[in-house]
Amino acid sequence: MKKKIIMVTGGQRSGKSEFAEELAMRLGEKPVYMATARVMDKEFEARVERHRSRRGPQWTTIEEPLLLSRHDLTGRVVLIDCVTLWATNTFFDAGEDADAAMNRLAAEFEEFTSRTATYIFVTNEIGLGGVSENPLTRRFTDLQGNINRLIASRADEVYLVVSGIPVKIKSQFNNENL
Amino acid sequence: MKKKIIMVTGGQRSGKSEFAEELAMRLGEKPVYMATARVMDKEFEARVERHRSRRGPQWTTIEEPLLLSRHDLTGRVVLIDCVTLWATNTFFDAGEDADAAMNRLAAEFEEFTSRTATYIFVTNEIGLGGVSENPLTRRFTDLQGNINRLIASRADEVYLVVSGIPVKIKSQFNNENL
Amino acid sequence: MKKKIIMVTGGQRSGKSEFAEELAMRLGEKPVYMATARVMDKEFEARVERHRSRRGPQWTTIEEPLLLSRHDLTGRVVLIDCVTLWATNTFFDAGEDADAAMNRLAAEFEEFTSRTATYIFVTNEIGLGGVSENPLTRRFTDLQGNINRLIASRADEVYLVVSGIPVKIKSQFNNENL
Repeated sequence: MKKKIIMVTGGQRSGKSEFAEELAMRLGEKPVYMATARVMDKEFEARVERHRSRRGPQWTTIEEPLLLSRHDLTGRVVLIDCVTLWATNTFFDAGEDADAAMNRLAAEFEEFTSRTATYIFVTNEIGLGGVSENPLTRRFTDLQGNINRLIASRADEVYLVVSGIPVKIKSQFNNENL
Repeated sequence: MKKKIIMVTGGQRSGKSEFAEELAMRLGEKPVYMATARVMDKEFEARVERHRSRRGPQWTTIEEPLLLSRHDLTGRVVLIDCVTLWATNTFFDAGEDADAAMNRLAAEFEEFTSRTATYIFVTNEIGLGGVSENPLTRRFTDLQGNINRLIASRADEVYLVVSGIPVKIKSQFNNENL
Repeated sequence: MKKKIIMVTGGQRSGKSEFAEELAMRLGEKPVYMATARVMDKEFEARVERHRSRRGPQWTTIEEPLLLSRHDLTGRVVLIDCVTLWATNTFFDAGEDADAAMNRLAAEFEEFTSRTATYIFVTNEIGLGGVSENPLTRRFTDLQGNINRLIASRADEVYLVVSGIPVKIKSQFNNENL
């Protein structure tokens, strides 16, 4: 097995999680679902439950809001759902300091992905709706952009999911965008 | 004539309506413009008028905020502008219940597109700007994502319009994104 | 030297400025950085400083919030960063009248790009997050969409940057999107 990093990005309800799950099932028989959600309200809980019922019994679920690298998943196919919640948790743990949070996320990412496995990171594009009037939202938008760019730069494949359609924007074979 | 479903999506002022109109004119001599707008204020009225004056006399206009399938447009080229207003009307008619609204939209869509015609659906990507603080907006964003995904999954062609440039993200010949 | 117009668009923190700078360095030895920022607060000043320190001593910097065409940059490679700030300044100078602002931007754009040079315009996609409740934001979103479409229609190349990945959506050789 060779190490492989895949990133799946898109907007809310774009179908990115569904596509990432299909991809994980195709790439491994017993994929691992790493849930990064922490803070729960009823609306959110319902969404998590919908996601869970969609996945089958072949999945192993790990709940990990912060320290992805605590889990040695060598040889497995791992779906990390999602980077946005992982970044949110890290951002609040770092006292809403986006630079400190980015340092922690980058260090965790490098450590976590140092082992040979297939990693599928699901993330969100949140910066295409104009600048927020809320300074906290602006700082988080910066953080989300920075971690997305780090993961994308390390990824072998990147997909942008639009209305359920996966558009491959980076692959091992094409870097001829320029 | 074979049945054909085309979806044109994009952000606000991306040029998606203009592109869809060009497409309709190319595909049929006397296209039908199905306007789904209902609630009107002055700002909105001015926009509708701008759109109307841009289209020529060869167009037939039908105003239909909810029940697309009431209109039998067999053999015609029909531009539905837009899915977002149709979904908004259906959402409010369903008491802001997104699941009920989705059921109605899905049933209407299947019935409407059961006849042999060329359908061009114009819709919006609204989920790429981060999660709204307004629960109503969040529910509508989910609904918009779900109906977009349904239409895209049935479509022969899907275009994402960015700054006036139509990017074909699904076609009858390429499903080789994977 | 032939005239060339390139547009680089994307969301906040998508890496569009970094990509545009790389492009400028590849296309010319002594590129010109045209900064369109005017209103400054501390947060913004820090961002400008970060951008400046990233660029090297080979760059010439011009600060021009409004009248791009005052500068004759014949034969140079010019990076305009960014269209959004230029449009914002013009919008407020035009008393928040989006139509008047668009007329001024269009006239400035045509005059500025009438000389033979390589122009790289950095801009933002801001219309993919749903309709704002703020009428001023809605009018500006329209203006941004209109100026983006004008520049894209004149451009030889357009890139959409997503999570740091430049996706070429228009080129001199492909207009086969249809």
